[in-house]
Amino acid sequence: MTSVLIIGGGGMIGQKLASSFSTNDSLTLLDIGFPNKNQSNARKIIGSVGDPEIIENSLKDLPEVIYYLASVVSGEAEADFSKGWDVNIHAFWAFLSLVKKLNEKSQGQYKPKIIFTSSIAVFGSPFPNQIPDDFIAAPRTSYGAQKASCELMLNDFSRKGFCEGLAIRLPTICVRPGKPNLAASSFFSGIIREPLSGIKAQLPVSTAVRHWHASPRSAVRFLRHAETLNFSQLTFNSGLNMPGLSCTVEEQIEALRLVAGNEVVKLIEFKPDEKIIEIVKGWPQNFKAQKAKELGFYAETSFEEIIQIFIEDEVSG
Amino acid sequence: MTSVLIIGGGGMIGQKLASSFSTNDSLTLLDIGFPNKNQSNARKIIGSVGDPEIIENSLKDLPEVIYYLASVVSGEAEADFSKGWDVNIHAFWAFLSLVKKLNEKSQGQYKPKIIFTSSIAVFGSPFPNQIPDDFIAAPRTSYGAQKASCELMLNDFSRKGFCEGLAIRLPTICVRPGKPNLAASSFFSGIIREPLSGIKAQLPVSTAVRHWHASPRSAVRFLRHAETLNFSQLTFNSGLNMPGLSCTVEEQIEALRLVAGNEVVKLIEFKPDEKIIEIVKGWPQNFKAQKAKELGFYAETSFEEIIQIFIEDEVSG
Repeated sequence: MTSVLIIGGGGMIGQKLASSFSTNDSLTLLDIGFPNKNQSNARKIIGSVGDPEIIENSLKDLPEVIYYLASVVSGEAEADFSKGWDVNIHAFWAFLSLVKKLNEKSQGQYKPKIIFTSSIAVFGSPFPNQIPDDFIAAPRTSYGAQKASCELMLNDFSRKGFCEGLAIRLPTICVRPGKPNLAASSFFSGIIREPLSGIKAQLPVSTAVRHWHASPRSAVRFLRHAETLNFSQLTFNSGLNMPGLSCTVEEQIEALRLVAGNEVVKLIEFKPDEKIIEIVKGWPQNFKAQKAKELGFYAETSFEEIIQIFIEDEVSG
Repeated sequence: MTSVLIIGGGGMIGQKLASSFSTNDSLTLLDIGFPNKNQSNARKIIGSVGDPEIIENSLKDLPEVIYYLASVVSGEAEADFSKGWDVNIHAFWAFLSLVKKLNEKSQGQYKPKIIFTSSIAVFGSPFPNQIPDDFIAAPRTSYGAQKASCELMLNDFSRKGFCEGLAIRLPTICVRPGKPNLAASSFFSGIIREPLSGIKAQLPVSTAVRHWHASPRSAVRFLRHAETLNFSQLTFNSGLNMPGLSCTVEEQIEALRLVAGNEVVKLIEFKPDEKIIEIVKGWPQNFKAQKAKELGFYAETSFEEIIQIFIEDEVSG
């Protein structure tokens, strides 16, 4: 039995991650809200990561493994500067400080594994064709700057022995179920998800845009696999780029045609959005992710596979 | 006439920087204390950068150029984790937030140049022989992590148009006048400064240790030159590595022998300190600093020159 806390456990990835644990595990989920699903085996805490009492409550049983997924997403962090920094940095700082306090109170006995979801948004252009693991983190969005700062903090708290931290940099998660969200990357999922439900979808960028994807199933596998690693044997001290699939929007569309046919593809409308075009220009397209592969992480190898996973997990169910 | 604020204006570099301005410039210095020198042309504010009222007071005349030099030094940030993060990150954040507020209040009219002294401590081992400008910032000290986080914040506030920021990464400044400080790098100056005054000095590391140096005169020149740049034309969005001199401790000692003779060199005692040896192992040794050179920054080219500058500015005076 492992005691696990998922901060951001009400979100899309948080919910799937929660479902991956067995009823033998002691599971606590913290989020500002939860979908109306029955998850009887988890203790749920409703509140903000910015609320010290809520965070203190979530840590009171000294969880051995903490997944920190909570975040203001990229589009919102860009639109609301103060909210982005408050939630994405200052709340994370307060959380780490509390872990430090508990570590010190227990004379170093309490030293949880903290797995933090960082993002490929820590990187800013210009990029090489394939981004190596030790590429400079010089973000060109607030979200990226916040994630990069969190990596630095987590790394320093870990180096000092207050916790064992690992920041994994997720690819864009695709195909996201549910509704579009405020992330500027939302359309990468929308152009697959909406047509598969017979709904029109807007493509705000050129089909030549190349991007870095992995399925929600991969995201959960990354998080679970991260927990099994021996953190003290990791020699790098930055965030870890996760594997993914590099493909163009055109390749996404052709995969959709292959899986679902011409009529479905016709539901994608090209409607350029200068704001999104500008943001996406600064995004990375392809990674080596060599260290992660050596550590046993893996992702999908074709976009058809990513669409099939969406159909299996979200449409057929 | 330029209106200038130097946050950390009471420190060694801050004082030299202040002296470099003419009496025609409007100069404000903020620090927790000032040496007993007569600097009649500057307004002095005594207080902590962590005190919001003090920071507000320092900005009330809307200085056009702000040098942010205040910092808990490396050794102290490593020894006092909370103090390091509080002063080096949280106070800088509060300062940037106030600049943002003033910028918004003035409908964007007030947009100061902020020159922040970062450090080569943002880099962590392993290193290539000569570190390129776009090398990953993966620090292995709290001080380095704090400086790297500040760079990310300054960059994001600048990108959003609240200020015009530039973080310059100083080499180890050598020869520092005065007393040893809590920086783990203090001995690089001590082994020159103390013997030149006829005092014994302890060398805690091997003479084979290579490091990256520049004189206090270079530091002031870097800061003044930074202010003359057109920030909107800078294409990079990370900290800027300053030029310096890469040399070994042995080369430092041989330069001292050349300048001051054998008897002076005999005052250096080798007394290994495992803690400092360990910290110094993680430090960079040599940089390309190509972007900075192209922008007109330059430093000393021999350690004799660095010693001569110390003698001219501190001993002869």
